[in-house]
Parts: sequence; C-alpha cells; structure tokens
Amino acid sequence: MAGVVEKRLADLGIVLPTPVAPVANYVPFVRTGNFMVVSGQLCLDAEGQLVAKGQLGAGVSIEDGQKAARACAINILAQIKNALGDLDKIARVVRLGGFINSAPGFPDGPKVMNGASDLVVAAFGDKGRHARSTVGVAALPMDAAVEVEGSFEVS
Amino acid sequence: MAGVVEKRLADLGIVLPTPVAPVANYVPFVRTGNFMVVSGQLCLDAEGQLVAKGQLGAGVSIEDGQKAARACAINILAQIKNALGDLDKIARVVRLGGFINSAPGFPDGPKVMNGASDLVVAAFGDKGRHARSTVGVAALPMDAAVEVEGSFEVS
Amino acid sequence: MAGVVEKRLADLGIVLPTPVAPVANYVPFVRTGNFMVVSGQLCLDAEGQLVAKGQLGAGVSIEDGQKAARACAINILAQIKNALGDLDKIARVVRLGGFINSAPGFPDGPKVMNGASDLVVAAFGDKGRHARSTVGVAALPMDAAVEVEGSFEVS
Repeated sequence: MAGVVEKRLADLGIVLPTPVAPVANYVPFVRTGNFMVVSGQLCLDAEGQLVAKGQLGAGVSIEDGQKAARACAINILAQIKNALGDLDKIARVVRLGGFINSAPGFPDGPKVMNGASDLVVAAFGDKGRHARSTVGVAALPMDAAVEVEGSFEVS
Repeated sequence: MAGVVEKRLADLGIVLPTPVAPVANYVPFVRTGNFMVVSGQLCLDAEGQLVAKGQLGAGVSIEDGQKAARACAINILAQIKNALGDLDKIARVVRLGGFINSAPGFPDGPKVMNGASDLVVAAFGDKGRHARSTVGVAALPMDAAVEVEGSFEVS
Repeated sequence: MAGVVEKRLADLGIVLPTPVAPVANYVPFVRTGNFMVVSGQLCLDAEGQLVAKGQLGAGVSIEDGQKAARACAINILAQIKNALGDLDKIARVVRLGGFINSAPGFPDGPKVMNGASDLVVAAFGDKGRHARSTVGVAALPMDAAVEVEGSFEVS
C-alpha cells in the first residue's frame, strides 16, 4: 500500500519515474546514521529528456525554470523511494540546494527554485519545510537549466 | 542576560537584526539531532537593504564584498539566535559555504569571504573555527554580492 | 604501518602531499560526532602550483580538468590523513561537491569531476562510493580550474 506521501503525490498526478542512474562514478544517495544525502539531480523527465535546457536570463523563462526545478525535486523523491522503499520514512527534509543555470546577474533564482520547494512541501507537509540555498551557476551538466541536491533525516 | 557570544558581538558594536524571513517556501533553519543547517543568507542590512549589489570583479570592490560577507554572517547569527534563543548553545561552527557573485575568473573570493569568517571567529572564538568552501557564482538572488550558508553543532 | 587505503594509493603511485594550509581564517576540517567535513580543496600539486588554471570550455581541456579534479581529491585525502592519522578510519565517503570553473554553458562538468570520484573510489573501494553534486561556477579562488569539498563518516 502506498504511504501518505505517495498518496499526496498521486493526488497531484505525479508518478515517480525510474530513478535516474548517476552519469558517472558515484551513487545517487548515501545514508550515514539517520542522515541521508541525495546527489544533485538534473531536470530530467520520465523519458530522460531535459525539461529545460540553457540559462535563466538568457532564453529560459522563469516559468520553464520552475518546471525544471519541480522535475529535479521529483527525481530526488524517486531516489529516496528507491533508497528507503517508502517516502514516509523521511522524518524531515533538512536542506535543498538549488543550482540555477544563470546568465550573469539573473536575480530571480528563488522564484525558479520554488518549483522544487513547493513540490517538496506539498508532498511531505510540515516535514517538508526545509532549509535552502539557491545560487546562480555558470554551467550545469548537459546544459540543464536546474540541478537540485538534498539532505534528509530518516526516521 | 546576554551570553558570552552576544557580549562579544556587543563589544564589536553589532546588534543582531530581526532575522530575515525566507523569500519563498522554505524555512531559515532546520535542526536534526545536534546538527543545524541555516539557509543561505544574503548580504542584507538591518533595514533590509543590500550591503553590496552586483559582481566582484565587475564593479563591487573587495572591501565592499567583505562588508557584504560580514552582513551575511550577522544574518546567520540572527537566525541562530532566533532558533536557539542563545548563541552560546552553538558547540561548533561546522561549515560556512560562501557564494561570491563574481565576474568570470575573479580570483579573490577567499578575501571577500573572510568578512564572514572573521566575524564568526570573533564571535565564537575557537568554537567558531570552521570548514569552508568559497566559490564564485554567476548570479545570486536580488543580485546580491554575497550569500553565505552555514551548518552547526548544537550542544 | 600503512593501512589498506594508503597501500592502494601507493600502488597508484600517489604520495600524499603535506596538507595545504587554508588561505584564510578557517580550518581544513571539522569533525562533529562521526561526521567530518573537509573544506573546499583547490587543484594544487605537491609543490603548491595549480594543476590547471582558468575555465573549462575556455582554454582548459577536459583531460586537464580531470587531472585537476584528481589533485583536489588527493588534497582532500591529505587533509583526512592529517585529521585522523589513518585513512582507514573513514567508514564512508558521504558526499563530494565539485565546483568546475566553467565558461557559460559548459556541459561536461561530470566528466571533469570523475577525476576526483575515480580516485576516491580507487582509494576507498566500496566505502568510497559517494553522493555527488557537480556544478559549473563562474570563478574559483586563484582562478583554479577545479575545487572539491567532501563530507565523511568516521568509524
């Protein structure tokens, strides 16, 4: 039976994709005690295509950036599901780190990153309220528009 | 009564501002066990104005960048005070992450970031000696010159 | 007597350098409980010279970037050796954060960062399998091509 978090995702029409395999010599998550780190996830959809490619402030709209950030968050959830078997085992979303592929000076990273934060809070409720850092980077793997990493407390 | 750390801050003439509310759907800190993460803080002063705006290496001087980094650190302390009630509850500053809004190739991020590190060490003494990563980013929220995040061991 | 990890390094022809002192007011590592954070390490060789300087996608080749990332990883290992006395005390490499000095849009950060990941997995074996985030930044200290930070579980 699906847990509380997965039911919320289903209500949002979200089906977790097969977790994306790392593109290199690392692993998608590491757990140390009750603390779990999830590797940076790109804005890939369920077919492995980039939801948005290129830079915010230079071709990618804020709205498309938000969709990209949301896709990153969904990929993080897919990695957690794969790691723990049940998303309800997350006691707290500790931190999300948002990397926004940005033209110099692009000021609206937080608006873009809300695409990830809103999804996580919708999925986990109060347990989803997280610390966050958002920065605009010069480049991302595959020229993805957004990459998000996360850390979590596991119950 | 003010604790040891707050007395040091007072000696430095620093009054902690009202902590800055997150600009989006996240929270300023999360504690998991004895570990606390503080969200990325921008270089806002007590009136909510940016201490420095724009890029190092393209208009913002190193000295102004240092003031900006110091302001980020003060905002982190304000968040901790709000979270714990007493800055003396910090057993150790574990890590500061410094994001310097930089023109391509700007090499002096560490000098800028010292504005944050020096303040934290002045406030916490030996407990303030922290690990650190400093990088130059293409863009920051609100075009702030500096953003700093932190993690802490709580006693 | 050298431990397992150091024997593997010796087999690879790697001699750990004297750990690089921080270039500012911070420390190279902090341990909190069984969790250890190592400060961002630049791609300096044993003589303190940059292995690669400048940006990927604008002069620095992927191959040179990989050598630079490998040098960062070696410097992280040198810091751990200094901190713990014995690399075998690492129970798990939790996370590496890779910052690649990148021209806008450079897509191959993961290939570059493999220079660090491959070295760490070669040294620690299964315990070296880590979570990872790789981003392309606009600038790094000293105009280094690569900076890598790490977090570790200590046994």
